[in-house]
Amino acid sequence: MRISELSSRSGVAIPTIKYYLREGLLHQGEQTSATRAEYDGSHLRRLRMIRALLEVGKVPVASIKKIIDAVDDESLPMHEMLGTAHYALGPTVEPEPTEEWRAARAQVDTLIDELGWHIHPEAPTRDELAQTLVRMRQLGVPVDLRPYVEAANELVTEVEMDTIPFDGPRDAAVEALVLGSVLYGKAFDALRRMAQESESAERLK
Amino acid sequence: MRISELSSRSGVAIPTIKYYLREGLLHQGEQTSATRAEYDGSHLRRLRMIRALLEVGKVPVASIKKIIDAVDDESLPMHEMLGTAHYALGPTVEPEPTEEWRAARAQVDTLIDELGWHIHPEAPTRDELAQTLVRMRQLGVPVDLRPYVEAANELVTEVEMDTIPFDGPRDAAVEALVLGSVLYGKAFDALRRMAQESESAERLK
Repeated sequence: MRISELSSRSGVAIPTIKYYLREGLLHQGEQTSATRAEYDGSHLRRLRMIRALLEVGKVPVASIKKIIDAVDDESLPMHEMLGTAHYALGPTVEPEPTEEWRAARAQVDTLIDELGWHIHPEAPTRDELAQTLVRMRQLGVPVDLRPYVEAANELVTEVEMDTIPFDGPRDAAVEALVLGSVLYGKAFDALRRMAQESESAERLK
Repeated sequence: MRISELSSRSGVAIPTIKYYLREGLLHQGEQTSATRAEYDGSHLRRLRMIRALLEVGKVPVASIKKIIDAVDDESLPMHEMLGTAHYALGPTVEPEPTEEWRAARAQVDTLIDELGWHIHPEAPTRDELAQTLVRMRQLGVPVDLRPYVEAANELVTEVEMDTIPFDGPRDAAVEALVLGSVLYGKAFDALRRMAQESESAERLK
């Protein structure tokens, strides 16, 4: 298909498609003349993934480039490619040079070991959770993560991971991971605030 | 205590305290001379709540003003006061004039009825969840909320609500609600991405 059809079918404006082509986010089409190129389903799928990362995941363009490089690098195992997408969805957390921080981070590492979870030693989620623990302690919020660990484990293993096509094309797996991770996260957040409203109505009536 | 001590004990700079006083976020101290006022524990507690809303909850100042007006309006029942704080923590969602939207919103209302949850008919969480459902459908993400409903219900009723001092001062209850809601949400989010990494390692090894 021509770029105009790619634009109308993907819902992405032509100047934006040209920007993605220049930045290497979208692979070049097949050049059929000096001014024309042909695009196919792989371009449509890639545009859909970029929109998912950008609009639903709120992932910055620079991080999307890293994810796409990982998708395109076929020598990278699927698991590491998904890890790249994964890490891009979380905030960037700077470790703090305090005793409090070291204790929280050690607690996170111990928790992961006890659970037998396979988490990369340098996964940014370790510092992300450590930061939350530090804030909880500073602000006097009780820290008991077990119920959250159990709920996260159950939802991920019994629901979310089944929606990811591990044996399909690499970009389809990344897209499913990002969409599932972000949208189920949003749904859960709204449901949690609903449950809080309902339960506080119950307790105060 | 004088404003300088209030500043050092709360960690809030004096110009910021003066701004809160002008904007009505912080109640006036007791004027002891033309240029001096005395502050007490109620001011410290209020500053702590403002910081919690601002820094941890990322609640905009205009919404903090609404919450504080609700805290100060003693005629407002506790439950409605907490609801105001609650609603300020979520995003503002504009309903869309589409059939898809109406169907999603009807599904949310039915779900709440079936659960027997006590949610205000105009609670913004209803539209928030409807919007997520619309996006899931548009993007082909499977919509099965039951496991999320169960997890949210369990965590809220068995863990989070027990940390809220319903019988203490009104601002202490709001502070606990905001801190708990935001910090447990962040912890859960990091744990969920960890579980995803671990489970994808398991499935792909």
